[in-house]
Amino acid sequence: MTSRVALGGAAVRTGANAKANAKARARPVRAAVSEPPAAPASEQVPAARGAARKKVVVLGSGWGAISFVKSLPASAPYDVVLVSPRNYFLYTPLLPGAATGAVEERSIVEPIRRPIAEKGWKYYEAACIDVDAGAKKITCRAADPECFDDKGRDCEWHTFDVDYDYLVTAVGAVPNTFGVPGVEENCMFFKEIVHASRFRREVNERFERATLPDVPESRMRELLTFVVIGAGPTGVELAAELYDMVYQDVAKMYPSRLIPFVSIKIIDLQEKILSAYDRRIAEYATDFFQRANIECLLNKQVGEVKPDAVVITDKITGEKSEVPFGLAVWCSGIRLNPLCEKIMDSLPEGTQENRRSLACDKNLRVNGSNGSIFAVGDCATIVRPRSMSKAMELYKSAAKCDDAGECEIDLDKDQIKAALNKGVEEFPHLEEVVNNIDDKFAVFAQANGRCTFDGFSKMLTEVDNGLRALPATAQVAKQEGEYLAAFFAQCDGDATKLMGDETKFEYNHKGSLAYIGKDAAVADIPGFTIVKGIAAGIIWKSFETISQVSVRNIFLVASDMIRTKLFGRDISRFID
Amino acid sequence: MTSRVALGGAAVRTGANAKANAKARARPVRAAVSEPPAAPASEQVPAARGAARKKVVVLGSGWGAISFVKSLPASAPYDVVLVSPRNYFLYTPLLPGAATGAVEERSIVEPIRRPIAEKGWKYYEAACIDVDAGAKKITCRAADPECFDDKGRDCEWHTFDVDYDYLVTAVGAVPNTFGVPGVEENCMFFKEIVHASRFRREVNERFERATLPDVPESRMRELLTFVVIGAGPTGVELAAELYDMVYQDVAKMYPSRLIPFVSIKIIDLQEKILSAYDRRIAEYATDFFQRANIECLLNKQVGEVKPDAVVITDKITGEKSEVPFGLAVWCSGIRLNPLCEKIMDSLPEGTQENRRSLACDKNLRVNGSNGSIFAVGDCATIVRPRSMSKAMELYKSAAKCDDAGECEIDLDKDQIKAALNKGVEEFPHLEEVVNNIDDKFAVFAQANGRCTFDGFSKMLTEVDNGLRALPATAQVAKQEGEYLAAFFAQCDGDATKLMGDETKFEYNHKGSLAYIGKDAAVADIPGFTIVKGIAAGIIWKSFETISQVSVRNIFLVASDMIRTKLFGRDISRFID
Repeated sequence: MTSRVALGGAAVRTGANAKANAKARARPVRAAVSEPPAAPASEQVPAARGAARKKVVVLGSGWGAISFVKSLPASAPYDVVLVSPRNYFLYTPLLPGAATGAVEERSIVEPIRRPIAEKGWKYYEAACIDVDAGAKKITCRAADPECFDDKGRDCEWHTFDVDYDYLVTAVGAVPNTFGVPGVEENCMFFKEIVHASRFRREVNERFERATLPDVPESRMRELLTFVVIGAGPTGVELAAELYDMVYQDVAKMYPSRLIPFVSIKIIDLQEKILSAYDRRIAEYATDFFQRANIECLLNKQVGEVKPDAVVITDKITGEKSEVPFGLAVWCSGIRLNPLCEKIMDSLPEGTQENRRSLACDKNLRVNGSNGSIFAVGDCATIVRPRSMSKAMELYKSAAKCDDAGECEIDLDKDQIKAALNKGVEEFPHLEEVVNNIDDKFAVFAQANGRCTFDGFSKMLTEVDNGLRALPATAQVAKQEGEYLAAFFAQCDGDATKLMGDETKFEYNHKGSLAYIGKDAAVADIPGFTIVKGIAAGIIWKSFETISQVSVRNIFLVASDMIRTKLFGRDISRFID
Repeated sequence: MTSRVALGGAAVRTGANAKANAKARARPVRAAVSEPPAAPASEQVPAARGAARKKVVVLGSGWGAISFVKSLPASAPYDVVLVSPRNYFLYTPLLPGAATGAVEERSIVEPIRRPIAEKGWKYYEAACIDVDAGAKKITCRAADPECFDDKGRDCEWHTFDVDYDYLVTAVGAVPNTFGVPGVEENCMFFKEIVHASRFRREVNERFERATLPDVPESRMRELLTFVVIGAGPTGVELAAELYDMVYQDVAKMYPSRLIPFVSIKIIDLQEKILSAYDRRIAEYATDFFQRANIECLLNKQVGEVKPDAVVITDKITGEKSEVPFGLAVWCSGIRLNPLCEKIMDSLPEGTQENRRSLACDKNLRVNGSNGSIFAVGDCATIVRPRSMSKAMELYKSAAKCDDAGECEIDLDKDQIKAALNKGVEEFPHLEEVVNNIDDKFAVFAQANGRCTFDGFSKMLTEVDNGLRALPATAQVAKQEGEYLAAFFAQCDGDATKLMGDETKFEYNHKGSLAYIGKDAAVADIPGFTIVKGIAAGIIWKSFETISQVSVRNIFLVASDMIRTKLFGRDISRFID
């Protein structure tokens, strides 16, 4: 995989898009109060800047939004308004560290106003509650509690509309309980900085409670059992950081009699932790956890979360059991942000069939929005065209036909290769088959060394099915945000160019890293190697430090890491 | 004033104290479940350590408690149990800095478990809810919310008793509203770390709200008016830090149109801010604030706090007015911690007449407790004997009497001086008069150059009235805690010595410092000079850094100060 922007030809769609674009330029007809009628002098844009500039509204303040905002030059002809109820960016990979005090909460956040102010753009601390794709307008609600109380204030400014020419949706996803009863009530989620603060506070509280006089041993054991549900990178890192905290710091400060009662457990449906990683990594990490005495409850389906126990069923034996806990954390997957449903409902029927995320084209334009809505990060899926849709056309292109229109009904290897090559431009994933044509042909051809249309179809179906959505990671969101900013900058505000298909987003996987405790990590660096243990731990610490979004955060995280090594973690508990 | 421990003779009280002490040694008769019936092996104290050791229970985790705990050697024959609902020490002088992000919350707290664990003592995270001075036993309630819910848990360990031989009360004071209506509902207090976090969040929120579209100017002005009530050091520093934050950081990140609507106001009953400081400092600071455009509403009595306005009355003109606000902070004084009332009620009648704080003797023993309860910090007042109680005795000692018992009815200067000198040992404050005998004698003597008993009495009354309680500052609490630890160590667990009067606490005022904004401070260093402006600012920053209670906190505060200079404050707002 390369990082260059590939040039794809798709002139076919230009006609339709130009029309759509004309529609997109039409002003909304509903009377939206989107800006103060008379803006104070200090905020008026210079007249020269006005006319041709496009209004871009960005929703969200996570990885996708901040990388878009940071990468889009202030000189590009766009007036950007960012709307998010959360006024800071959170460096999510260090959230487990913040949850245990290894780094401070403040060190891994960055005020969203900083990059916005640098570029002279606007930010509203408000939640977007509705999108009218037809009128190109969003409705926002500010988090002004004064408007909900009984003081009788006049709160007309509480809910307001903002017009856009282009909407960039980067609202992420929300935790998914998969309908398991009791999760909302009895588990913590682990996605935001407040979850990290809460985790730190609640772990601390369990230890304080267990230290009190007269607490029976059974209660101590329950209080000090920490259960993480979901053994993906977040769950694994949280369990690992908790392990470090308990044995490096808590053990020094709390009575030693407590330690035998501590237990950390991680539950997953798969047979290894980190099951989405390379098999060697998953095995190493699972083994590492087991040796560290972090109990891995694998192949376990969670059926219910009770106030003090998780009910699990073994996937293989069908055996049901209960895991009592003092604190349970749900790190088990994500689902569509409800705002995206509203966007889907606002688009023409049939354009958004997949309800798991916003279906986009290769330039991150949301299908059905006529190029006026873009999406990046966890809320977006790039729908790649399935080659099966043109199977007959490709097959025919390589078949020899006689004058009467009669064609061969089976093709040899070279013909199949030619047919595939014909489709590579439109369906880049076919390149993989071309490169492995000997193996693939052997599978789908007949004994006579020729392949029928039926075999060819099966071959394409297999390849199409191998098309996977990009993972819901920070890395993908960041690259999409950067790409989109570059695309906007390159199009220079030109509506036709913004509808064009000259370029496309390509994901460049730079590797996966996960911290697994005791200064060790696992790293999968594509095209290079797999690194495990302390060496990977050093890579992890360096990477997490230099990957911070600002010099300020690099300074903070580095000083936190030094501090933790020197003085241990701060185990104070604030109750707000 | 010196820092040596003065030797005072007060053998008179020894007899009574020995008796009281015998009573104090009697074991409590009520069956208190104060310790787990069978402590796990790891927590059992070595047998050799047991018998002679005294059990000291410390209440609180503020300045007084932590300096006592840190100063008492682990080798001293005491088993210490610290009980506090707050499991960390807070470096209060930097609270205003934490409220604006100049330093981080975590940098100015220190887990109380750290010093406790180092010495092998115990800490319970619980609130002391009652003290039985007769039975020498406290009742504690742990903050275990599980015990209040409907889960039907068995919570017998929730409330528990702890026996003591000696109780050290260091519970501080609580904010005083002086009965002004609306304070609790409409003001923030400013005493704990959560107040700092809340202040930071709420200021930030006001700016975010004011930035939203369509907000009328009147509402912007109200939102961005910050009122501090009380111009003591805390209120002044909070206003100063807020000023810095607004003009150094907020102004860079929020639209410039907001800045003209920002206003910071400070209200006080006195005619100057920092009125308890040296007059030159108070004048300088008041002038400094006014030039910085922090509005000083002085000579103003607060009558009521409405949801959006403070009602004030001018002390001089009697004029009443309203000050609208977006956020109001009450920094206006302290009152007795309710727990101290329970202690008072538990002591013999007549021993605690002053209900503002626990009356103690010169060795910080609470009056009426027979030497079993000590108090330090804001909850304690050392009652110094009034010399008037022995006026006649002293007067007579210097008068010449004839054989028939007839004495002079007026004395000359030397005789008065001799009488005063006689009392200096018992009433050290008389020394001041001896040193200024010429001036004083001139005031109270008759025209004939002699002083009657009446004049002498007036002289003593004036000096007695000049006896002021020590200020409720961190400095006093810290010195009291240190003194008490030294006293405990010196007495080596001996009950008679702990009742002795060989030594006494003497406060050594090291100076007053207050930050007033724009890198400037005011400092009153006794016996040296008064420093104002940037030079004092440098002293302030250095002093606050090196005064931190641990190397860890010094590191944190120093790195915070560097960070703030380099990168400005973090204005993110977490909503928990």
